[in-house]
Amino acid sequence: MSLLNPPELAERITSGQGYTRAAGFRVVHVEAGKVELALAKKDELLQFGGHFHGGVIAAMVDQAAGIAVTSMLPKGKIGVTVELKVNFLAPAGGEEILARAEALQVGGTIGVAKIEVFSKTQNTETRCAFGTATMRAVDLPKSFA
Amino acid sequence: MSLLNPPELAERITSGQGYTRAAGFRVVHVEAGKVELALAKKDELLQFGGHFHGGVIAAMVDQAAGIAVTSMLPKGKIGVTVELKVNFLAPAGGEEILARAEALQVGGTIGVAKIEVFSKTQNTETRCAFGTATMRAVDLPKSFA
Amino acid sequence: MSLLNPPELAERITSGQGYTRAAGFRVVHVEAGKVELALAKKDELLQFGGHFHGGVIAAMVDQAAGIAVTSMLPKGKIGVTVELKVNFLAPAGGEEILARAEALQVGGTIGVAKIEVFSKTQNTETRCAFGTATMRAVDLPKSFA
Amino acid sequence: MSLLNPPELAERITSGQGYTRAAGFRVVHVEAGKVELALAKKDELLQFGGHFHGGVIAAMVDQAAGIAVTSMLPKGKIGVTVELKVNFLAPAGGEEILARAEALQVGGTIGVAKIEVFSKTQNTETRCAFGTATMRAVDLPKSFA
Repeated sequence: MSLLNPPELAERITSGQGYTRAAGFRVVHVEAGKVELALAKKDELLQFGGHFHGGVIAAMVDQAAGIAVTSMLPKGKIGVTVELKVNFLAPAGGEEILARAEALQVGGTIGVAKIEVFSKTQNTETRCAFGTATMRAVDLPKSFA
Repeated sequence: MSLLNPPELAERITSGQGYTRAAGFRVVHVEAGKVELALAKKDELLQFGGHFHGGVIAAMVDQAAGIAVTSMLPKGKIGVTVELKVNFLAPAGGEEILARAEALQVGGTIGVAKIEVFSKTQNTETRCAFGTATMRAVDLPKSFA
Repeated sequence: MSLLNPPELAERITSGQGYTRAAGFRVVHVEAGKVELALAKKDELLQFGGHFHGGVIAAMVDQAAGIAVTSMLPKGKIGVTVELKVNFLAPAGGEEILARAEALQVGGTIGVAKIEVFSKTQNTETRCAFGTATMRAVDLPKSFA
Repeated sequence: MSLLNPPELAERITSGQGYTRAAGFRVVHVEAGKVELALAKKDELLQFGGHFHGGVIAAMVDQAAGIAVTSMLPKGKIGVTVELKVNFLAPAGGEEILARAEALQVGGTIGVAKIEVFSKTQNTETRCAFGTATMRAVDLPKSFA
């Protein structure tokens, strides 16, 4: 029996409420230390040029890093963001964006992840952003326990 | 007659379409090299704990940095994001968040800004995030010219 | 009697040994949450163009952030670097560089600082870099207690 | 005949002068878009706890990113640092540190790289830092042409 957070927690904190539910974030896959998220294009996610807004990409980075680290924390703990950084590599003009995060290190109180974001058009993926983020472990709110 | 972008451009790229209009970003004030944005709390902007989602705060950082740099670019140019970094300092649990950006340096092709984000409850402001971002000047899309 | 680390600690961890002593880092001023460091130009600190090497500037950012946060930690604790980010704003071609750090937030386990670096030539200071850094509080090694 | 910078340029800007020569940076391997640097431990590179100073690790990140991007620039151009960020993952207590950089994207004026730093003791490598950096292409100084 695992003492780590179950994969279902990723789903609950993503699709259960708030910004990530409203925007349409989907958890494609999660395992210990890794996660893939997806987000389909819609007008209310774009910037002036018709590409995904940088802030939406940053939110994918944030959410994916949080899940990657949280998946390696003991039950009852969740990662909240200390800092994140994103380099934007290409316009995100695709029909969907995918964020793939991988925990680089998770200790007692802090975890770090790297995150790659891809813009997908039909069967072509273009890496459009690369990020790193630090999470801090805090107690999971009672409503999620 | 100024050769720099007019303040109205900030309004257009913020309230005119897409993510920033849907989320409710407001341009409170803009002058050469400086901008203040505001965003009122609503459910679809929050994370699992009921605070503004880190990705929404990062989007405020991104938009504010873009406007601060763009306000110092010649007419016809606009700043797109090369990279951004945000440190989260306190939960953003207020009724509104404010982002105040200031350009640190704007050259021919690149501009850098610092951005402070405040969580506001009644008359109290708490600094909840601090960011830096780099913008690259590109041609303004024809539809905005 | 203060329960925080004394200003002398900044001096000891800077001038006492290792890289910062060899490079010539000087503690100009330190108070709770703030520090100024200085470093005079010499050949072994420069890059191919004759300016201070970016890594030397990053080291100033690192050391200044560590001292600014450590100065607000209880005696017996010291800040070690979780992450740092530096934006380079202008070539550091002066006779001396100065780093001024200010703690933005210090909690039980983590502290964040912002750092400005200036290149100084005679009486002119040019801001050449801007950074942010996160520190984690750990026990001070016994040799420093 | 390649129109890109030759591998020898990496050697010249690293071992030829200044900080990187004085510290002892060695170019282990360089190819288009990739580089490995090494640096042996010595007292004047350490911090108060006896590990490599964070600023020295940041300098490795900076130099490696610069070479990785420069190796993909046309002859006569060199990358100077726009910004860098480093996450420190473990104490760098080894006998040597290695930095491995890979260009993620190189365009006409800007290039981005990711950099991993390892602390090496005998035959064991521990990843001690992970960084990202943005470079800007400028004309190579005449003395290097």
